[in-house]
Amino acid sequence: MQNFTYQVGTRILFGKGQIEQLGKEILKYGRKVLLVYGGGSIKRSGIYEQVVKILSENGIEYVELSGIQPNPRVSSVRKGIELCRQHGVDFILPVGGGSTIDCAKIIAAGVMYEGDPWDFFTRKARIKGALPVGTVVTLAAAGSEMNGNAVISNEDTLEKMGTGSMHLIPKFSILDPVYTFTVPAEQTAAGIADIMSHIFEQYFSLTPGTFIQDRMAEAMLKTCIYYAPQVIANPEDYEARANIMWTGSLALNGLIGEGKQEDWATHAMEHELSAIYDITHGLGLAILTPYWMDYVLSEETAPKFGEYARNVWEIEGELDDMKLARAGIEKTAAFFRSLGLASTLKEVGVEEDRLEEMAVRVTVRGAIGGFKKLEKEDVLKIYQKAYRG
Amino acid sequence: MQNFTYQVGTRILFGKGQIEQLGKEILKYGRKVLLVYGGGSIKRSGIYEQVVKILSENGIEYVELSGIQPNPRVSSVRKGIELCRQHGVDFILPVGGGSTIDCAKIIAAGVMYEGDPWDFFTRKARIKGALPVGTVVTLAAAGSEMNGNAVISNEDTLEKMGTGSMHLIPKFSILDPVYTFTVPAEQTAAGIADIMSHIFEQYFSLTPGTFIQDRMAEAMLKTCIYYAPQVIANPEDYEARANIMWTGSLALNGLIGEGKQEDWATHAMEHELSAIYDITHGLGLAILTPYWMDYVLSEETAPKFGEYARNVWEIEGELDDMKLARAGIEKTAAFFRSLGLASTLKEVGVEEDRLEEMAVRVTVRGAIGGFKKLEKEDVLKIYQKAYRG
Repeated sequence: MQNFTYQVGTRILFGKGQIEQLGKEILKYGRKVLLVYGGGSIKRSGIYEQVVKILSENGIEYVELSGIQPNPRVSSVRKGIELCRQHGVDFILPVGGGSTIDCAKIIAAGVMYEGDPWDFFTRKARIKGALPVGTVVTLAAAGSEMNGNAVISNEDTLEKMGTGSMHLIPKFSILDPVYTFTVPAEQTAAGIADIMSHIFEQYFSLTPGTFIQDRMAEAMLKTCIYYAPQVIANPEDYEARANIMWTGSLALNGLIGEGKQEDWATHAMEHELSAIYDITHGLGLAILTPYWMDYVLSEETAPKFGEYARNVWEIEGELDDMKLARAGIEKTAAFFRSLGLASTLKEVGVEEDRLEEMAVRVTVRGAIGGFKKLEKEDVLKIYQKAYRG
Repeated sequence: MQNFTYQVGTRILFGKGQIEQLGKEILKYGRKVLLVYGGGSIKRSGIYEQVVKILSENGIEYVELSGIQPNPRVSSVRKGIELCRQHGVDFILPVGGGSTIDCAKIIAAGVMYEGDPWDFFTRKARIKGALPVGTVVTLAAAGSEMNGNAVISNEDTLEKMGTGSMHLIPKFSILDPVYTFTVPAEQTAAGIADIMSHIFEQYFSLTPGTFIQDRMAEAMLKTCIYYAPQVIANPEDYEARANIMWTGSLALNGLIGEGKQEDWATHAMEHELSAIYDITHGLGLAILTPYWMDYVLSEETAPKFGEYARNVWEIEGELDDMKLARAGIEKTAAFFRSLGLASTLKEVGVEEDRLEEMAVRVTVRGAIGGFKKLEKEDVLKIYQKAYRG
């Protein structure tokens, strides 16, 4: 196990009706809120109405920034920063999924920075402070509600990049599983694939002696696998929604990654896809993951895949690690297919003649991946396999 | 799953050499420290010397309160409060295990309260604030380094009681597995039993739909079971010490208990033992646990014990829940025995004619236990079985 620092102070308010705490929680930090959200879904579901009612009842003023898209754009961030400065906002309240929350986080940091917020992603500037952020989560996927990470797309340069800072960790997050009842099946499935991919990026590692992290990662994977079919079949299954929602938060708050070298190659490869094609992040991950697994499987990595097959998929018998590994990878691919997710890049409209360009971009700062280093040629081969199936 | 609030902001500094961060961390909060520790073990191991050197180098003044015993006493707390007031202490630094940390927490709260600190335990007073506490952990057991709980004994009334408050959550905790290398085998084993008991108290529950909590609890139990023999055989096995240490912190910070009804009957029964006989807390728990399991096993609780047997002990075959349960309970008892821990109360000097008195005291405020309610007569039967074996 490697040395690590772990600190996540987010106050999690989990369960049905926890929105009632919203006013009290905001008032610990501010009185003038930037309310950040996406499209009409929170209006259709009635969450928007609940939130603004609570703000009014508590004498909290608010300005709205709506229209945040999946793969949120730096232009939205800039607009948000402007609104904050103009109205003297002192608290940022995203209501939505990871895209909305990520956008809100960078607005919060951008308000305290003179330059352009894209500088945080090009590493031209470091985040040195941020307005307090509190979240109301409506989609189980990103885990952004309990960490200091944010991923933003730049529509001018077609880049999608991530950054992170202690200052971006939300002060509180309200997780009401009921709010995810209305998430459509495909988005629910993509969200689960996103959660599982976060776990994979931390689980597949060559760092020895991380038994507790790995058993917890397997616990989270098993939760996703157990509840995914239930939640697709019955979108209003509170128990299934609750387990998936809490797992989504725990999967990316450091619990299973601290103390280990992590991978993140699949995420890097997916970011290029969604930067150009604007496809759903979780869907892109679901497509790429089995091909990545297959490509990085080697004598060196087989024992870890064997552990995965035995402990997560409960594949038994007298198989060697290589055979177990292949069986586990096949299970993974079949599982994503069973959720109705596409399994090739071709199906989702990616063009074969742009794979090379994406492979170049992913590796522009050097090889990616901690479990297995991937150079441009490796990435290209994975893209090609994922394209053709 | 029940609604819950989860917030643990403790900054965990985990790994070899993390003590180097001590000065910087303290200076975030204060400049005049009460250094709280037990006997000579931290002097023998050299940790004491390291700590005072760092304090001096950082210009941090300190007053010492040593001699904190296992089952820490309210008289030590009172002495600590007096020292803090006398010297204008603004930060409390326990260096030790759960007893030292618990004592430090109540000193921290007691300084901000006019009355006697025992009032926090009799519920005469609520904890409304506390000096900041940061810990250096030298024993993997209590998990006190990452939660707001404290248990204190009153030597006048022979009571041992617990309290908890957000204000008691340590600001930071330094967990260096190397510091636990010198913990003797019996104390190491008792510490592991303590960790496992914390997990059991949260795992055994009738609350439905807590899949993620329960799979994580099993991950933690498996970690204890996997590493316990290794760490007893080779006390300087860093990997084993690290996994057990981190599991100890995670086992009692809310992760596996939030969202569920918890039990805590075994702890309540053990507190009476150690209040009178001053036996090691973890040893008392190891003795009582299998008898408690056996006593509460019923048609209603058998499915949970069956899950435990299958998922933790990997007992397979076509057994019904009741048979699985019995096999799992037997495995538990055998495991504690394999660590060299006593398995009857008689062996540790408890007197049979005081069991009745203890059973009365445990249930003085009513039945105990969330998984299965235990009245005085139930507790007495468990004590009697645990006495005779």
